[in-house]
Amino acid sequence: MASGNEIILLEHGSGGQASQELLEEVFFPLLKDVLPLDSALLAPAAEGKMAFTTDTFVVTPIFFPGGDIGSLAVHGTINDLAMVGARPLYLSVAFILEEGLPLDTLKRVVSSLAEAARRAGVQVVCGDTKVVPRGKADQVFINTSGLGLVPPGTDVRPERIVPGDAIIVSGPIAEHGLAVLSAREDLGLEGLRSDSQPLHRAVSALLEELGPDLHALRDPTRGGLGSTLNELAEECRATFVLHEEALPLRPEVEAGCEILGLDPLYLACEGRFVAFVAPERAEDALAVLKRLPETDSASVVGEVVSGPPRVLLRTRYGGTRVVTRLRGEALPRIC
Amino acid sequence: MASGNEIILLEHGSGGQASQELLEEVFFPLLKDVLPLDSALLAPAAEGKMAFTTDTFVVTPIFFPGGDIGSLAVHGTINDLAMVGARPLYLSVAFILEEGLPLDTLKRVVSSLAEAARRAGVQVVCGDTKVVPRGKADQVFINTSGLGLVPPGTDVRPERIVPGDAIIVSGPIAEHGLAVLSAREDLGLEGLRSDSQPLHRAVSALLEELGPDLHALRDPTRGGLGSTLNELAEECRATFVLHEEALPLRPEVEAGCEILGLDPLYLACEGRFVAFVAPERAEDALAVLKRLPETDSASVVGEVVSGPPRVLLRTRYGGTRVVTRLRGEALPRIC
Repeated sequence: MASGNEIILLEHGSGGQASQELLEEVFFPLLKDVLPLDSALLAPAAEGKMAFTTDTFVVTPIFFPGGDIGSLAVHGTINDLAMVGARPLYLSVAFILEEGLPLDTLKRVVSSLAEAARRAGVQVVCGDTKVVPRGKADQVFINTSGLGLVPPGTDVRPERIVPGDAIIVSGPIAEHGLAVLSAREDLGLEGLRSDSQPLHRAVSALLEELGPDLHALRDPTRGGLGSTLNELAEECRATFVLHEEALPLRPEVEAGCEILGLDPLYLACEGRFVAFVAPERAEDALAVLKRLPETDSASVVGEVVSGPPRVLLRTRYGGTRVVTRLRGEALPRIC
Repeated sequence: MASGNEIILLEHGSGGQASQELLEEVFFPLLKDVLPLDSALLAPAAEGKMAFTTDTFVVTPIFFPGGDIGSLAVHGTINDLAMVGARPLYLSVAFILEEGLPLDTLKRVVSSLAEAARRAGVQVVCGDTKVVPRGKADQVFINTSGLGLVPPGTDVRPERIVPGDAIIVSGPIAEHGLAVLSAREDLGLEGLRSDSQPLHRAVSALLEELGPDLHALRDPTRGGLGSTLNELAEECRATFVLHEEALPLRPEVEAGCEILGLDPLYLACEGRFVAFVAPERAEDALAVLKRLPETDSASVVGEVVSGPPRVLLRTRYGGTRVVTRLRGEALPRIC
């Protein structure tokens, strides 16, 4: 395993000498800045509650414009923690590697994962690697589980959404899903880039500004904004009204969706959230978000009204359509 | 998805309607006794430290004598926590499903996982499911991450192993590895059964009896007792001397290993630990362990002596051989 064209072998998953070499030559050096010394024992939460979440990443291709499976695995789990108001602290990272994976590919992925953790200020505190024979996995799958601290008094959850709430989207939608699809199918669409990024700092800023006037948060990943809003409408038993002309959408994404006949409302984001806030605080929320690069295109896209659980879209032309829940799988393996 | 011959489809991983149905028809009902109401927010640790660990399970076949991938995924992570002296509290569970997996197979696995969690007294607090196309995984892979509480004053780690320590093995070795191999290759060996079981109660009893005289613990999983002891010898920089006639081994396992030419020292256990204790407390340790069904065959198998990091075996015939670290992969996918 010195250098060159090495590949992953089954013995790298044996728990013996080759496993140790993989740890010492790939994982430990590449993760050294984010690995604490006393790896698995964590200081207890002083106050507040701990949030615990898990997510597995099976995205294909593993490298795409704007990210890769390594950074996505960090951002995805950080964002799950942020959506319950938690400050992300610790991650576990577990790899399933397909026999034959080039070692250089693994190093790129692990480097990217480490860089994402470093930038986000989280520590990778434990890990695992399994190797399966060729044809029993697809290059690399990564599970990350995350632990975060929810500050005392924080209470963001769908049950707090009430009629009147403003619905804010933190940035342009559908970018991750379309970028991954374009890379996978080699569609040659120009200017697409995943929005994969960590959102915990924006959430902290929003919580600090709004306090209890921030009612709920969610990241529209699999199934996109359309599916996410339908889930939330069910959970709070209210109707959401969206204004099509207010939905943030980059021209390249709009054009790509038109060419491919895809509805951007069902394409995944990996670096956006939807926030429900008391209407009198919507402008304050936007002011805070627009100061941060990750949320500088945030906008109010609609409001909550009394009514049965459903999502309505007021179109550019004055009509109204129901945004239904996604049926079937429009786009598998985008995360 | 009412009943019958349903299989997993890609749309079950979509995040949309079919995903919701899978949650409501499989995961929620089968896990209901171990799923807390407020799923991801955990009470903080009052005192002591939190232990956090992760492990992915890719065992094949997924059902084997004495267990299956579901119960194994619970026991494995519980035992990782127990080995640092932690009381297991919470688990995350993340599935990768291969398209086409029979739904009944998934239900059996989830039921077994839930039953194992219930018996062990741990809660499943968060989860995830991904579906990949046929041929991109192998039926089902499961990641579990675990959180546990290390009581104040607990300090079990390899660096505390000192010359003189008694080496205790908690039960017969090599049973999991040989049972899985026999099931996979349909070898028809009789009387084999995985030792997969949770060890946290035995560890708690041992900690309570021995206090700081319990120096270190580890579970000899991948690579078996031979690899595990080599790792520990490196970590504490001492020589371990084992006595072959003292190694607990069931006759069926010994016979199976002889037929297949396998060394039981390198076959995985999934329900055993090796403990290093102050020699004057070895009898007390055995007395505690022998009272519990999961460790009723515990025995002293050797001792720690000053010397270079290595593992020596005194054979039945009075000779001595070095137990080397495993090279290559004797038996892939046993966990």
